[in-house]
Amino acid sequence: MNKEVKLEIMRHSAAHVMAEAVQYLFPEAKFGIGPAIENGFYYDFDLPRPLTPEDLAIIENKMREVIDADLPFIRGELSREAARRLFVDQPYKLELIDELPDTMVTTYKQGSFTDLCRGPHVASTGEIKAFELTHIAGAYWRGDEKRPMLQRIYAVAFDGQTELEGYLTQQAEAAKRDHRRLGKELDLFSIHEEIGPGLICWHPKGALIRQIIEDFWKEEHIKRGYDIVYTPHIAKLDLWKTSGHWDFYRDYLYSPMEVEGQQYILKPMNCLGHIMIYKSQLRSYRDLPLRYAELGTVYRYERTGVLYGLARVRGFTQDDAHIFCRSDQIEAEVAGVVRLSQFKYAGTIQMWEQATESLERVLEKLESAYKVDAGQGVFYGPKIDIKLKDAIGHRWQGPTIQVDFNLPQRFHVCYIGSDGLEYPATMIHRTVLGSMERFLACLIEHYSGAFPVWLAPVQAMIVPIADRHIDYAHQIKEELQQEKIRAQVDDRSERMNLKIREAQLAKIPYMLIVGDKEAASSSVSLRLRNGEDVGLQALSEAKARIKTAIEAKA
Amino acid sequence: MNKEVKLEIMRHSAAHVMAEAVQYLFPEAKFGIGPAIENGFYYDFDLPRPLTPEDLAIIENKMREVIDADLPFIRGELSREAARRLFVDQPYKLELIDELPDTMVTTYKQGSFTDLCRGPHVASTGEIKAFELTHIAGAYWRGDEKRPMLQRIYAVAFDGQTELEGYLTQQAEAAKRDHRRLGKELDLFSIHEEIGPGLICWHPKGALIRQIIEDFWKEEHIKRGYDIVYTPHIAKLDLWKTSGHWDFYRDYLYSPMEVEGQQYILKPMNCLGHIMIYKSQLRSYRDLPLRYAELGTVYRYERTGVLYGLARVRGFTQDDAHIFCRSDQIEAEVAGVVRLSQFKYAGTIQMWEQATESLERVLEKLESAYKVDAGQGVFYGPKIDIKLKDAIGHRWQGPTIQVDFNLPQRFHVCYIGSDGLEYPATMIHRTVLGSMERFLACLIEHYSGAFPVWLAPVQAMIVPIADRHIDYAHQIKEELQQEKIRAQVDDRSERMNLKIREAQLAKIPYMLIVGDKEAASSSVSLRLRNGEDVGLQALSEAKARIKTAIEAKA
Repeated sequence: MNKEVKLEIMRHSAAHVMAEAVQYLFPEAKFGIGPAIENGFYYDFDLPRPLTPEDLAIIENKMREVIDADLPFIRGELSREAARRLFVDQPYKLELIDELPDTMVTTYKQGSFTDLCRGPHVASTGEIKAFELTHIAGAYWRGDEKRPMLQRIYAVAFDGQTELEGYLTQQAEAAKRDHRRLGKELDLFSIHEEIGPGLICWHPKGALIRQIIEDFWKEEHIKRGYDIVYTPHIAKLDLWKTSGHWDFYRDYLYSPMEVEGQQYILKPMNCLGHIMIYKSQLRSYRDLPLRYAELGTVYRYERTGVLYGLARVRGFTQDDAHIFCRSDQIEAEVAGVVRLSQFKYAGTIQMWEQATESLERVLEKLESAYKVDAGQGVFYGPKIDIKLKDAIGHRWQGPTIQVDFNLPQRFHVCYIGSDGLEYPATMIHRTVLGSMERFLACLIEHYSGAFPVWLAPVQAMIVPIADRHIDYAHQIKEELQQEKIRAQVDDRSERMNLKIREAQLAKIPYMLIVGDKEAASSSVSLRLRNGEDVGLQALSEAKARIKTAIEAKA
Repeated sequence: MNKEVKLEIMRHSAAHVMAEAVQYLFPEAKFGIGPAIENGFYYDFDLPRPLTPEDLAIIENKMREVIDADLPFIRGELSREAARRLFVDQPYKLELIDELPDTMVTTYKQGSFTDLCRGPHVASTGEIKAFELTHIAGAYWRGDEKRPMLQRIYAVAFDGQTELEGYLTQQAEAAKRDHRRLGKELDLFSIHEEIGPGLICWHPKGALIRQIIEDFWKEEHIKRGYDIVYTPHIAKLDLWKTSGHWDFYRDYLYSPMEVEGQQYILKPMNCLGHIMIYKSQLRSYRDLPLRYAELGTVYRYERTGVLYGLARVRGFTQDDAHIFCRSDQIEAEVAGVVRLSQFKYAGTIQMWEQATESLERVLEKLESAYKVDAGQGVFYGPKIDIKLKDAIGHRWQGPTIQVDFNLPQRFHVCYIGSDGLEYPATMIHRTVLGSMERFLACLIEHYSGAFPVWLAPVQAMIVPIADRHIDYAHQIKEELQQEKIRAQVDDRSERMNLKIREAQLAKIPYMLIVGDKEAASSSVSLRLRNGEDVGLQALSEAKARIKTAIEAKA
């Protein structure tokens, strides 16, 4: 039997055991349903009073007793009428019985508890392995807010204790790294109901990280022959009709605004602006490739329900670029983008898919795609999608590269060849980071908020031991700032240990503690955010250490 | 008599003389009207054939004859009926006579020409001073496109030849500097009917200048204790109702978009996003001032008719900032903004108004304004507006600083004082450059496109004399790029003189010409865009010269 199916049966059986334990604690309990779910199970109960954490402990203990007793699961089959008599005190079960299509009804019994159930189940309760009750939540009967609110107990269950603990550790780790939580704790960004869901306000510290990445991004792109451009956030709807976006992507587009009788929409993509810039002049084969890059903020509609912190939003800034080239340049240009992507992530985040492999596949397809797709109304052409895996195995959408023969045709994007004739240009759409929002979400979770020194909003916190060391602390700050190190002094009237703890919680890479000894010797006591106490260091040495870390971008 | 009124009378008299000259050339001419206008006058004529430039010369000569003859202007007064008989062949004049409210009609006659006219006029044609016919344009009779199209001759006229020539020179200079024309010639930006009027696409070279200014702006702001933030381009309409913008500025707002039953609009200002960031935490008196700066792109509706290149647009990026402070910090903060503004423009563009003076006035007003305005529903509070004057005297809107007690009240923007009580914060809205668009328009016209070296998109063009010097040219380019000098090689198969001329037209500051002599001696022949031939220079020397110019930001 498939391992996943076996696990599901075990989890469902554990739900029955949980119901037995609840019945033991609350003989008057009315039972809803208790299915297996991903990683565990739940059961809904109608109880005389709200459950407490102590109740959960009792229920869990009782469950372990039942499991230790290794009671068999016994299947029963009875008529609908007999079932109605059996569950006469269980209104939710009666409702379910009435809706069953069959004339015969099945039950499963272990110990003193019988449940209306189709099964299957494990042979006996002893087969239930590692489990843990996790939390309680209210749940309307059948998800209908007009029906009674039941109490749902959630649990996780796995094949063995190691798997369970592995899962719980990973969950705790993921919760600690959750970019929504860290974004708030580290004061990086916020989302406001007053502005609207999925719309990000970048606070000073988050904006600083974004800027550092943007500057780095620009520099690397300029080095590689890209030109930065800016295009407007709105354009006439007609333009998006010509492009086909209005037909293909309408569900993701915002409703039009009217200006002097013309309809405009928020741009969902940057490509059309770049096409307009390309077309503002006659281009020759000698001018190509032209690589237009833009940190372009686009807006796309997503249902409120799927919005998720910075990772899924309604407005995001793509690190977008469009390469206009001749067909004989496609291969080299796509390879250039793959190299740029690899460079960007090297040593930071592991690439999940081997980009070079997929590149080969794409290039093989290119020739035929060019023949097949061109003019067939296919939106864009072959695509490379690179996925990233962060420190805890979470997968993120990474670079995308897409070759496009469609838009150049729709917009008559051409160049003059060496023979003086007009040829269609090819467009390559690409992002390397995806969007600044999603990339920051990924960075926050990957580093668990402890950003590498070059990205840390505050790189060094200087902590004077007593008030008489504040002047020396500020003197150090000035010196560090002159070296472009982002330093602050914590000159509040608080205890030194509190200041150090807070700097650690803020994941500031370096704490420079200064007292009499340090002031007398032009030095600092250096501590790292991982708790390591480096000890007394000459200021010049500490400065050099920080600068080296910044320059290493590691 | 007021000098301007005298000038207007002289210009109107000159229009009569022009009509006389036209009648001399075309005895069958039908006359429209001929008023004085700013800087000159025009007259509308219905003529048997289109006018040629040669006609204008003849008309101008005839006018000079009439002026030299010093003929008197003679006023006549006659009945409406007599006037109808006098102008029996002049249908446009007849139409005007019929609409006159009085029973008596006045005419003015000089030489052989009599016009229906209220006057006044100069005593005789000899009083008409310096004038010049400038151009012809079609003009519908009475501006009505259903009436006949007449030919309008425009002229300029001044009190003396010096004034006239001064004006014509300034006009020619302004036309040469027109940022719309230079923006196209230098490939800086474009506006596309397909995207929409007033919406700017920044081309690589324009975007590069914008980026340099943005980077400089950011650096100066961070030095001065500002934090950069980013906020979304759309927000719920309700937010703009709470702020009062929907009531006060509705004519400038775009129509709402609907998302999941909620109305959103494009932001016309950045202030509300900054308020939301401020309010995301409880703020203490110790945290203030907080200075949030954003290069925030905002959208405001302007009629198509008033749009003007980069100077008046529908979407623009403000160099915006909001300072949240205590009332005892207002004075120092406003003074800080004024100092920043002065720094920004020092040595570049002259301030028209003495900012410090107006600052004093504002600060005097502050105390009473605080008492009077707070809670009175006045939008914002006292404001400093600084105007700039560019190289040819054109005035531009510069920095604005506005103290605001209104929005903090509407949004309950507070801080906790040292006494533990809540106090309203004061907001200072300010821009230093205004908008990137308008600032670039101003820079283009001020420098006539010959940007200072640090802003020039291409700083050095290397021109190989023959194909055998191309390698050496590229070697120099690499060396310059290593020093972060933006250098290009013109390796087209064109004559050297053409390349030099084109580089000059592109207003590239330095041309490095390289041939056998230069390659042999690790040197270049340096030319400047003003035509100056500096001659042979060691490459190291040329490099140092360019770097010095870049660093001087002059």
